[in-house]
Amino acid sequence: MKDQVAGGGLLHRRSLLKVTGAGVAASLLAPAKAAEDWMIHAGARQNEYGHPSAFANLKREQIGGHPFGAEAGSSSTPLQDLNGTITPNSLHFERHHSGIPDIDPGIHKLTIYGDVKRTLQFRYEDLLAYPMETHVYFLECSGNSFRNTLSKPLDLTAGSLNGLVSAAEWTGVPLHYLLDEAGIGPDARWVIGEGADAAGLTRSVPMDMALDNVLVAMFQNGEPIRPAQGYPMRLFVPGCEGNISVKWLQSLKVQRTAAYTRDETSKYTDLLKDGNSEMFSLKMEVKSLVTSPSGKMKLKRKGVYEISGLAWSGEGAIKRVEVSADGGKSWAEAVLQSDYRPLALTRFRIPWRWNGQKSVLQSRAVDEKGNIQPTRAAAINRYSAAGFYHYNGIQSWEVSPQGEVRNVFV
Amino acid sequence: MKDQVAGGGLLHRRSLLKVTGAGVAASLLAPAKAAEDWMIHAGARQNEYGHPSAFANLKREQIGGHPFGAEAGSSSTPLQDLNGTITPNSLHFERHHSGIPDIDPGIHKLTIYGDVKRTLQFRYEDLLAYPMETHVYFLECSGNSFRNTLSKPLDLTAGSLNGLVSAAEWTGVPLHYLLDEAGIGPDARWVIGEGADAAGLTRSVPMDMALDNVLVAMFQNGEPIRPAQGYPMRLFVPGCEGNISVKWLQSLKVQRTAAYTRDETSKYTDLLKDGNSEMFSLKMEVKSLVTSPSGKMKLKRKGVYEISGLAWSGEGAIKRVEVSADGGKSWAEAVLQSDYRPLALTRFRIPWRWNGQKSVLQSRAVDEKGNIQPTRAAAINRYSAAGFYHYNGIQSWEVSPQGEVRNVFV
Repeated sequence: MKDQVAGGGLLHRRSLLKVTGAGVAASLLAPAKAAEDWMIHAGARQNEYGHPSAFANLKREQIGGHPFGAEAGSSSTPLQDLNGTITPNSLHFERHHSGIPDIDPGIHKLTIYGDVKRTLQFRYEDLLAYPMETHVYFLECSGNSFRNTLSKPLDLTAGSLNGLVSAAEWTGVPLHYLLDEAGIGPDARWVIGEGADAAGLTRSVPMDMALDNVLVAMFQNGEPIRPAQGYPMRLFVPGCEGNISVKWLQSLKVQRTAAYTRDETSKYTDLLKDGNSEMFSLKMEVKSLVTSPSGKMKLKRKGVYEISGLAWSGEGAIKRVEVSADGGKSWAEAVLQSDYRPLALTRFRIPWRWNGQKSVLQSRAVDEKGNIQPTRAAAINRYSAAGFYHYNGIQSWEVSPQGEVRNVFV
Repeated sequence: MKDQVAGGGLLHRRSLLKVTGAGVAASLLAPAKAAEDWMIHAGARQNEYGHPSAFANLKREQIGGHPFGAEAGSSSTPLQDLNGTITPNSLHFERHHSGIPDIDPGIHKLTIYGDVKRTLQFRYEDLLAYPMETHVYFLECSGNSFRNTLSKPLDLTAGSLNGLVSAAEWTGVPLHYLLDEAGIGPDARWVIGEGADAAGLTRSVPMDMALDNVLVAMFQNGEPIRPAQGYPMRLFVPGCEGNISVKWLQSLKVQRTAAYTRDETSKYTDLLKDGNSEMFSLKMEVKSLVTSPSGKMKLKRKGVYEISGLAWSGEGAIKRVEVSADGGKSWAEAVLQSDYRPLALTRFRIPWRWNGQKSVLQSRAVDEKGNIQPTRAAAINRYSAAGFYHYNGIQSWEVSPQGEVRNVFV
């Protein structure tokens, strides 16, 4: 870590102690305590399944209005209201193509068939006896941040713009155990996963991924995965676009070729400028954004703030995040607060002294493979004008002299 | 890792592939799919704040019946229904001395006073601008597992017996930043934390801990901490008995001596056989238990199962967990599935082939300081017959020839 003060008011963590007393609104008051109601009367009873404070006003934005019915849509994690790296299950982003099925785990089965020695069928309770693994992974929709590819910036929150990304601790059965037991044929190169929802979403997973770190996930942040996340079981393909982690997984077909389903030909391909499309561009590339201060927030005073945000990469762990407060003219290295966890979200933090002048906050992540997050212009320039999947350009937040924070394109 | 098969049917992970095909109920069936209702009709709409499947039947057991009113009590994490290492916020254990207050963060303040250069008062929004840190920590009530100190074993679930322990990703302001800003006096040795609930729970934190890794926690698993966990802010003292992590934190008084409050003299002390009591025995010591198979479960068939459980220590990271299936006659080393995370929960796993005979499942954890989890007899023998705090003895589950699993004392 460099120890000098960078441009734009960014501060090294160790210099913070010299400035907080002056910079942060810790008012000097006597320790007299108001006798609030909650100090006098006993509070509410405990309950079986808890809930957050109404004051926190936690909710996901609904992105709906799909022409084929209200059941198709998505809901985005309110990144601006959260901190740390785990997304609570109730606020994990969702994307549904035909609503959330309410599946009875006593009826549901997972079948492995196709180019295998033995066709196998597993009930939920069968899989619970198998060896499991536990890992923290991010999940990102390939369409996340698509509104930053439009011609004009929308004045929205960090979550509304970029909240189709979340992270959780996922626990499940490594798929290679099940494929080994089925016995895959010598020409098997793909595994085709199909969901049990009415949309029957179906995706092809390359065999090298399937035999590496893919899970049949059954638990999310400790508890059984929820209906909206694929209860009773889902595929989880770490680091890849969300829809390949097929929810409500009911079958895995082993075969020599990809299936070229609707969900990997007419959708979830990347149209290039020459008219060709990239297919099976599965990995989500290095990306980051500042979540605080961020869009729709208001800074009420000059002084010191912690700039904080999230970084991730489908290629591996985050190695470095740099932050700018002057629209990219100067950069300073942020502290990475998470443990080294490849394919998880990494929280970055750096103190900043706001002097009351117009500022533009940005972050730029680098992963362990050396991939560098591109500018917005470079990210858009990769594809045709109609392309919006896999956008990972730098997010810019402008702070006005009045302290209002909004999304800008620079 | 040893590669041999240990006694009692315990298997090394690498030997699993040779036995699962024979041992696990993967029935050979045609891949025909029943057209269940959820495959034909669109499912439910997404919503703002999600919820689990009713089929999963997730709930905390309520331990109440306190003579001073229904608002005092606890609720325990259903450890037998969970997997991984994170406890979802809705299932984190709770212990309330006067119910759950519903505090308005716009009114609540945290005051630091006493032997300091500057009395400081912080509003919730002041603290949000401070530097934060994020860590996964376990939290355990000092009275956890007290029912295993009784004279006869109760036939209950793992959660009912041992579920006053949970783990979450906690994010907050390191207390040393705030104490540095206040400027502690040269004789200051303790920090007294007081809650804003009607019980006004108050505990003394040694200054060396307060300046080390104690947080003023504001986020749990990403979202603002909940009313039941101290919203809008709580003290978090990693590795220590739960009640010192004072919820609804409203003041921190810096002074030369401990406060010797009711919560650290008449309660939360450990009565020894000679009539003296240990006070400020804050650290929760090395402990583990098997969560599956566990009490009230039923094994429906012979064959291979994954034995899985949790281990933790207030002294640091878990170094090793051994598992026995024959009541302690032989032991085999389990795989530790979690990342190296001191003061978090560690998931351990080992495959086991049940031959249909009576078995007794146990686990024994060792932490990085070399502390070894004691037997039940040794754990009880430390204190007077009336003592039940800080119990960390080995948990034994007997599997009957009929496959019924129940708590036993061996």
